[in-house]
Amino acid sequence: MTALDPTSVTCPAPHAETERVLLGHGSGGRLMAELLADLAPRLGTSAADDAAVLPFGSAELVVSTDSFVVTPRFFPGGDIGSLAVHGTVNDVAMMGARPMAISLAYIVEEGLPIEELRTVTDSVATAAADCGVAIVTGDTKVVNRGAADGLYITTTGFGLRMRGARPEAKGGRPGDVVIVSGPIGLHGVTILSCREGLGFETEIASDTRPLHRLVTAMITAGGDAVHTLRDPTRGGLAGALNELAATAKVGVELDEQSIPVPAQVAAACELLGLDPLHVANEGCLVAFVAPGHADAVLAAMRACTEGAQARVIGRVVADHPGRVTMRTLVGATRVVDMLVGEQLPRIC
Amino acid sequence: MTALDPTSVTCPAPHAETERVLLGHGSGGRLMAELLADLAPRLGTSAADDAAVLPFGSAELVVSTDSFVVTPRFFPGGDIGSLAVHGTVNDVAMMGARPMAISLAYIVEEGLPIEELRTVTDSVATAAADCGVAIVTGDTKVVNRGAADGLYITTTGFGLRMRGARPEAKGGRPGDVVIVSGPIGLHGVTILSCREGLGFETEIASDTRPLHRLVTAMITAGGDAVHTLRDPTRGGLAGALNELAATAKVGVELDEQSIPVPAQVAAACELLGLDPLHVANEGCLVAFVAPGHADAVLAAMRACTEGAQARVIGRVVADHPGRVTMRTLVGATRVVDMLVGEQLPRIC
Repeated sequence: MTALDPTSVTCPAPHAETERVLLGHGSGGRLMAELLADLAPRLGTSAADDAAVLPFGSAELVVSTDSFVVTPRFFPGGDIGSLAVHGTVNDVAMMGARPMAISLAYIVEEGLPIEELRTVTDSVATAAADCGVAIVTGDTKVVNRGAADGLYITTTGFGLRMRGARPEAKGGRPGDVVIVSGPIGLHGVTILSCREGLGFETEIASDTRPLHRLVTAMITAGGDAVHTLRDPTRGGLAGALNELAATAKVGVELDEQSIPVPAQVAAACELLGLDPLHVANEGCLVAFVAPGHADAVLAAMRACTEGAQARVIGRVVADHPGRVTMRTLVGATRVVDMLVGEQLPRIC
Repeated sequence: MTALDPTSVTCPAPHAETERVLLGHGSGGRLMAELLADLAPRLGTSAADDAAVLPFGSAELVVSTDSFVVTPRFFPGGDIGSLAVHGTVNDVAMMGARPMAISLAYIVEEGLPIEELRTVTDSVATAAADCGVAIVTGDTKVVNRGAADGLYITTTGFGLRMRGARPEAKGGRPGDVVIVSGPIGLHGVTILSCREGLGFETEIASDTRPLHRLVTAMITAGGDAVHTLRDPTRGGLAGALNELAATAKVGVELDEQSIPVPAQVAAACELLGLDPLHVANEGCLVAFVAPGHADAVLAAMRACTEGAQARVIGRVVADHPGRVTMRTLVGATRVVDMLVGEQLPRIC
């Protein structure tokens, strides 16, 4: 044993840096998955689905909650108020439920113009009316200047699961067809463009919109053959598919040429070095559907405005469980990973 | 008409100051009532009760939401996690419901030690288990450094209304007995003392605790004779009673000597120039009960730990609807008004 043998070193180990929350912990990517895997078991909950199903006599109540911290608060296509309603309506819908009611909690920074609070509140009301949901209760807290950034909104949505609907994060089975309801990347690129003044926001707008009518059409056409529904918000399509593949213990194979990336989204992503598959969406969904029902579900989707551009983008496989791969335009196959770290904070 | 006749002045009116949100808008006092009276009608909701009742077949689902922004996050008697669970459990209970489930949304500031997030999450879990409620779903958002103050929590609670229970904000009737379940002012004075380093926090602790078991005992003893239940949090006992008197269009007469103000709360309030009636509580409730059932309800309350010190503090009258008065120790009568502006921000 020499003096340099590491087993002989007795000085204290280097002081561990305090682990701190990073922006990337909120990104919908791998860091966030790790944080939730740490916290959720302490609460006895699962982080797999975006909503919970509570048995209620012979009915099933679906509940989902989300905080909205988007900046800027107003953007082409919507604002923090409509986004909060749509996001929560969509999370409830992704469990195959018809949204009925929403609760609304504001955290307001001292100094916010009251007129802005009225404008956002009117936007909440308009979006809720359009979705056919009632705002049933609320709360308002005010924090001192500098203790928040204008306005944060937390909405909790309630809905009743449709008869025969069983979509869930773990529902994917080998052979299932992977369907996306429309173009991807619009919300994320719009927010980023607004924030950085890139100019794309004059050409594109967020896709924020409610998807519950589309889901109703899909369930009516496909029933429990609609195995999984997910709106790919934070973390984008790649984040959503990786989570679903891991939860269902299946692989997913995508076909790059079938993925609908609008030209402006592609241009912005190229300029910024982003992968469109990691960019957030607020108005489209991805579904795993049993192959025998895929045509009927696709037809039902295309009959809805929100699903007019629905298409098949890949399939669920038994190979490489937990992993998403993509056959690229040049015929190669690459792994589609979750975002690691932070691409774009405060996207919703 | 002279040159100074104001009707002849044609220069533009002075530019109106932009109305802005003040800390007082979150105080549970008059400013907050005005803000809610502005916003709630836009949403088609009532701000009278702290929870909504949704008919659900033959059952009634009670839903309440609250954001928690308390500072400091850890204080004698509790922390932001236990406070969030108790506050929401209590709001559901005040509608005569048994709490069943809670959703949990975190807004975390970048840089918060993850260990603190674990500690708060464990506190949420312990409080929920003690209350017999499940944490069924959640959300975590991270905002950049400086865009929040550590951690905000929004909880939404669900419960089922007990058979025969009908407590509501507008339920008070002349002749009703006004009962308070225990000492007032402990939460507010504890938080203020911690924050300002006054030293009272070595002697007292927040009263934060769940009240649903107490409510079950009251409803079991009094049924629909329990006309109104309210936990006097922000705005204190005075704020709660003024809101209830206005909503039910009745007067309330209090008897000062019967109001349980602990000695340390009285001392702190005297030092700070506060009225204990305006100081927040997190572990007591005030009830309006039909006179024929008051003894039975009081006896049931005193059999619970949370209600051991329950007592009658006044009565509901037909006179001076919307107004709360108090017969003072020296035999005079004074008006007990709502707090105007801000006494103590971020109390919960």
